[in-house]
Amino acid sequence: MEKRVRTNLINCLSGVKSLNLIGTKDEKGQNNLAIFNSVIHLGAHPPIMGFIQRPTSVERHTYENIKSTGYFTINAVSTSIHQQAHQTAARYAKSESEFEEVSLTEKYITGFHAPFVEESPIKIGLKCVDIIEIPVNNTKLIVGEIQLIELDENSMEKDGFLSLPKHNVVGGNGLDSYLSISEIDRYSYAKPDQFLKTIK
Amino acid sequence: MEKRVRTNLINCLSGVKSLNLIGTKDEKGQNNLAIFNSVIHLGAHPPIMGFIQRPTSVERHTYENIKSTGYFTINAVSTSIHQQAHQTAARYAKSESEFEEVSLTEKYITGFHAPFVEESPIKIGLKCVDIIEIPVNNTKLIVGEIQLIELDENSMEKDGFLSLPKHNVVGGNGLDSYLSISEIDRYSYAKPDQFLKTIK
Repeated sequence: MEKRVRTNLINCLSGVKSLNLIGTKDEKGQNNLAIFNSVIHLGAHPPIMGFIQRPTSVERHTYENIKSTGYFTINAVSTSIHQQAHQTAARYAKSESEFEEVSLTEKYITGFHAPFVEESPIKIGLKCVDIIEIPVNNTKLIVGEIQLIELDENSMEKDGFLSLPKHNVVGGNGLDSYLSISEIDRYSYAKPDQFLKTIK
Repeated sequence: MEKRVRTNLINCLSGVKSLNLIGTKDEKGQNNLAIFNSVIHLGAHPPIMGFIQRPTSVERHTYENIKSTGYFTINAVSTSIHQQAHQTAARYAKSESEFEEVSLTEKYITGFHAPFVEESPIKIGLKCVDIIEIPVNNTKLIVGEIQLIELDENSMEKDGFLSLPKHNVVGGNGLDSYLSISEIDRYSYAKPDQFLKTIK
């Protein structure tokens, strides 16, 4: 199988991907914004998220900024900004701001070092707490602890559930396909010998 | 914030989740099937996928079987089996087969040790190549190299792209919400100073 064909196929096999813009700023004040399709939940107590960093054999501004400053933001990609989010993947020079290049608004919250995306419906500020090597292919798992969250509190259910479709959050399929989502149902905690109930 | 409320909220922050059934079999022949919402693409050359294993302070049959045998399968969850997939999360005893309990069909392919889910549209057989500790919260990244793939070849585009909506694959929101997906668009590789084109 040709290399690019195989890359496309393998990238589709892992299922629906989470799409987020990761915002960082270097020590001199130059910001950076890049789309990632590998953000993952790692735990709620303490609140920990991670993402996969591809091999750093070429320049990786997000990774360099996190390593030098310790902070980054995760901003959900919604339908209204998904094309701009895709465009952040272009190889802009380090001196160029993806915020400006794709017309997204840099936002700062209560002195947090890294920039948020104002247009994003779910903004999360994290402190890097670990960088874990994955030796088999020279990737890394960047681990962050959540420091602050900005979202519309009215959109949160009493039980803490946050509907991603209500926030127009998109999903990813492979490297270049964007998905809209809608809820089928929520189900009760599964127990042996008990039928599932829907939660409404 | 109450612990369960916080658990729900934090689990929603990482965006749309990939939902898969992981199949394993212990050395005595007892199979196991469990839903995971943390499968992630790690690389295409070699083809590597991973998933997050929660702390193994309680019995974790999937993890124990992978550790002892080295093999597991990843099977995409589609709309037609999403309720059965959810039910695999119930705490069945090790001697019980989730395949039987939730009425999914165990399938074996060309001598591969671990069982696949016949009803799943995308079946992947993997060999465990690494287990990486995430010390901050005692979780683990289980890393597998793809050994075999079974899917409808006609459903693959010439460029290797595989449409998840066409396979009725579902996504996840938090711990208990299931999402149907539909494609918005595919876009060309992003380059500076060039408008995005859609791929059709």
